[in-house]
Amino acid sequence: MEFSSKLLENAVNEMSQLPGIGKRTALRLVLHLLRQPKEQSFLLAGALQKVREEINFCKSCHNISDQELCEICTNPLRKKELICVVEDIRDVMAIESTGSFRGLYHVLGGKISPMDGIGPQDLNIESLVAKAKSGKIEELIFAMSPTMEGDTTNFYIFKQLQDFNIATSTIARGIAAGNELEYADEITLGRSIIDRVPFEASLKL
Amino acid sequence: MEFSSKLLENAVNEMSQLPGIGKRTALRLVLHLLRQPKEQSFLLAGALQKVREEINFCKSCHNISDQELCEICTNPLRKKELICVVEDIRDVMAIESTGSFRGLYHVLGGKISPMDGIGPQDLNIESLVAKAKSGKIEELIFAMSPTMEGDTTNFYIFKQLQDFNIATSTIARGIAAGNELEYADEITLGRSIIDRVPFEASLKL
Ligand SMILES: [Zn+2]
Ligand SMILES: [Zn+2]
Repeated sequence: MEFSSKLLENAVNEMSQLPGIGKRTALRLVLHLLRQPKEQSFLLAGALQKVREEINFCKSCHNISDQELCEICTNPLRKKELICVVEDIRDVMAIESTGSFRGLYHVLGGKISPMDGIGPQDLNIESLVAKAKSGKIEELIFAMSPTMEGDTTNFYIFKQLQDFNIATSTIARGIAAGNELEYADEITLGRSIIDRVPFEASLKL
Repeated sequence: MEFSSKLLENAVNEMSQLPGIGKRTALRLVLHLLRQPKEQSFLLAGALQKVREEINFCKSCHNISDQELCEICTNPLRKKELICVVEDIRDVMAIESTGSFRGLYHVLGGKISPMDGIGPQDLNIESLVAKAKSGKIEELIFAMSPTMEGDTTNFYIFKQLQDFNIATSTIARGIAAGNELEYADEITLGRSIIDRVPFEASLKL
């Protein structure tokens, strides 16, 4: 790509560093900004600068937070002895939006993935084990994605916590509400039969 | 979407102002930046700020340029009496990359589109007519996309230039190299027969 302007080339190059944004898309986005009032670019640039400079991670759960401890960890109404282990903060947001969980979270910041060179030491596992050691956790829910990496991560943590008296569970796998049974994959369908729930219990959902 | 951080929310909101970037994608992009070294965000923010603040448009052809006149307009080797009319600077880049055009450009900055409220006065048409009036143009090539808006724009400019002695042409429409004939749309295929070229001329391509 030949640019008629170094400034433009520079902006397109930086924009195309973002995942899933190729050079062509980056050019389209930058040209869009050039057609908008200057303020829009300045607000975007300022917000990106500021979030990277000042962002904090909650000292307890590693959720993104503007304070030392996040609003969930400091909420006196939440059950501090119930911990939901998630991969990243998008999962916190997704579970929070369901309104069905009243415990705390522990954000690992990824999943064990030897293919990508990510081992247990790259994740926030040590601090989780420390919490367990201090006897603060009664129950732990694994809410990792049901993939091989998710399962590996769950199992690694499960082994680390074996010596403590902690109840562990994983989120249920099954047929998503509204989905046709015939389109479900075999593993999910098989699991949903093994993990079947009493009909009366299902009525309470 | 409920955010645990105002800084994060702000960055995601600004990012999702970009066309084709929804809230979810914006969140993914911002979280990616948070995992990268701070410098990457600062370079991106700086480049966006700078390009919007300092960008210039060539006084003659309206191409993006870091100088008053762009490198194409100031190139003594290019034919100043041959003008290629394009919609935006991406078209300049596309045509430049073919290496087959040695004239100058005139960037309209859009196309006439009543549906989107874009009329002739919103485009760089006046300056094109002024160039024509001054007798500087011998030949003008319309290189707009072959759409209704492109055709409308071509025709509007064509009418404006009627009183001047300027040869006009449009880029050839036809079957793209390497494409199967059977998949071409009828209009293109029909046009390609009407606009057929002598076989010997085609061998020179
Ligand atoms: Zn927290
Ligand atoms: Zn120029």
